[in-house]
Amino acid sequence: MIFHADVRDAAARIAGRVRRTPMAEADGLLLKLEQLQHTGSFKARGAFNRILAAGPPPAAGVVTASGGNAGLAVAFAAAETGTRAEVYVPRTAPPVKVAGLRRLGAAVVQVGDRYAEAQEAATERAAETGALYCHAYDQPEVCAGQGTLGLEILEQAADADTILLAVGGGGLMAGVAAAVEGRAQVIGVEPETAPTLNRALRTGGPADVAVSGVAADSLGATRLGDIAYAVAARTGVRSLLVDDEAIIAARRELWTRHRLVVEHGTAAALAALRTGAYRPAPGERVVVVLCGANTDPSDLAG
Amino acid sequence: MIFHADVRDAAARIAGRVRRTPMAEADGLLLKLEQLQHTGSFKARGAFNRILAAGPPPAAGVVTASGGNAGLAVAFAAAETGTRAEVYVPRTAPPVKVAGLRRLGAAVVQVGDRYAEAQEAATERAAETGALYCHAYDQPEVCAGQGTLGLEILEQAADADTILLAVGGGGLMAGVAAAVEGRAQVIGVEPETAPTLNRALRTGGPADVAVSGVAADSLGATRLGDIAYAVAARTGVRSLLVDDEAIIAARRELWTRHRLVVEHGTAAALAALRTGAYRPAPGERVVVVLCGANTDPSDLAG
Repeated sequence: MIFHADVRDAAARIAGRVRRTPMAEADGLLLKLEQLQHTGSFKARGAFNRILAAGPPPAAGVVTASGGNAGLAVAFAAAETGTRAEVYVPRTAPPVKVAGLRRLGAAVVQVGDRYAEAQEAATERAAETGALYCHAYDQPEVCAGQGTLGLEILEQAADADTILLAVGGGGLMAGVAAAVEGRAQVIGVEPETAPTLNRALRTGGPADVAVSGVAADSLGATRLGDIAYAVAARTGVRSLLVDDEAIIAARRELWTRHRLVVEHGTAAALAALRTGAYRPAPGERVVVVLCGANTDPSDLAG
Repeated sequence: MIFHADVRDAAARIAGRVRRTPMAEADGLLLKLEQLQHTGSFKARGAFNRILAAGPPPAAGVVTASGGNAGLAVAFAAAETGTRAEVYVPRTAPPVKVAGLRRLGAAVVQVGDRYAEAQEAATERAAETGALYCHAYDQPEVCAGQGTLGLEILEQAADADTILLAVGGGGLMAGVAAAVEGRAQVIGVEPETAPTLNRALRTGGPADVAVSGVAADSLGATRLGDIAYAVAARTGVRSLLVDDEAIIAARRELWTRHRLVVEHGTAAALAALRTGAYRPAPGERVVVVLCGANTDPSDLAG
């Protein structure tokens, strides 16, 4: 579980390490441009908070398992804090992702055929060496770090009523919900084909779900984190689902109407407005969080 | 010639019509994200000011000659103000640009093989029909409208010392220089292969230059505007040149480090910093204006 005070502590800890990303107002929407964060997603916030909260890093450094945004963020935060980083990914990880991690200075270890095997090897490695294990979402310091984005939203748009954001493992959702508790409502949006939050809220706790679809590269967690569930249940986070067609259209709209490039998972938040899955009341101030842009922009041409 | 008061008047006139674009601070740079403006460039500001300053639009509407950002902006501003728009382009204009103008509701007229022929036909048409002619840069209302971007910069970064921006015909440069006169210095950056401002400052007035290179689609004006020259000379705007290689590298850096997509011409402003053509003093607060993103992002993949 995390609370508002944990997010405040995280903000003090990571100040100057992460970018304060801008808020854009356009066509009645508030867009939090967090895709402009270091390494192209909000994950840098949690990675810095996890590393800095642990005090002087162990000689073995930090270990994580992720070929995606979390891996990039941990590699970056480790490099910036002079910490050794080992990132475990499956042997099936795309070479472009492995190269990206290595460019950030991380040692990349390829183990197994699936993400679960890489994660198991990473946790074993951390236990053996004393390295600091950084989870992609289900650690208090990680969630609290992501929540610093919620504090920025309140500073940039004090009258915000509602915050729409995409949910995978739920670290961002948990952090932001704790940050804005009592000030604004948080709505988690997921692809129909990756409904970790939706399932957890329906069945009273995190449970494994099958994951597929265009957003699986960033929203590919197969179950909601325990911390995310606890915060969602406490603060009354609502869940909405959108389909791949709506996600693709929202991503395209962000480019054609706003010249913003985001990854598919990120676009789920706007898709909830465009499909009518969420209908704001008259005068309601809605913030759409754009949380990541680690994507190939080629298909946005023309 | 235009002055600060003209820009103030423009800001009052176009308030609510254009987006107040955000300022991002990252890695010691201030980035004015004007590429997020309606139609993907600053040109919407000048187009609205030109149309609204003229009072009730003539029955024949507005006429312009541009297959690029200015044409898109005039088409958009006309549609938003309920004004008929005719946009003249050469027969050689790319079909994708013609289609984009038509999507915004403009009547597209294709005349001649070169831009100069289209422009001549457009001015004749305006004289015949009484339509309001909108120049791409060399009209006081157009320059003053673009300058509203400079007022926003001072509101968002009151301590700005220096503003770096790309120059084509000079409308943006003139407007911003008038807006910030006495508050900040303006530096115009151009490709070596399109040196309209550089040539004008060296020879004491606008003169035709040969134009080529990667940025010619947005910085393709063949001579600086008269208003732009007058304002540059009065306010002491400085000129810097960068080569295509530096422009391409700066555009790529904006994507890889900041997840921002801009057109090549826009990237010239950052290129001046990266090449050392401009070296800020310690503590100097530098704003880089990102002024347009009407570009194909395909080559940014990977």
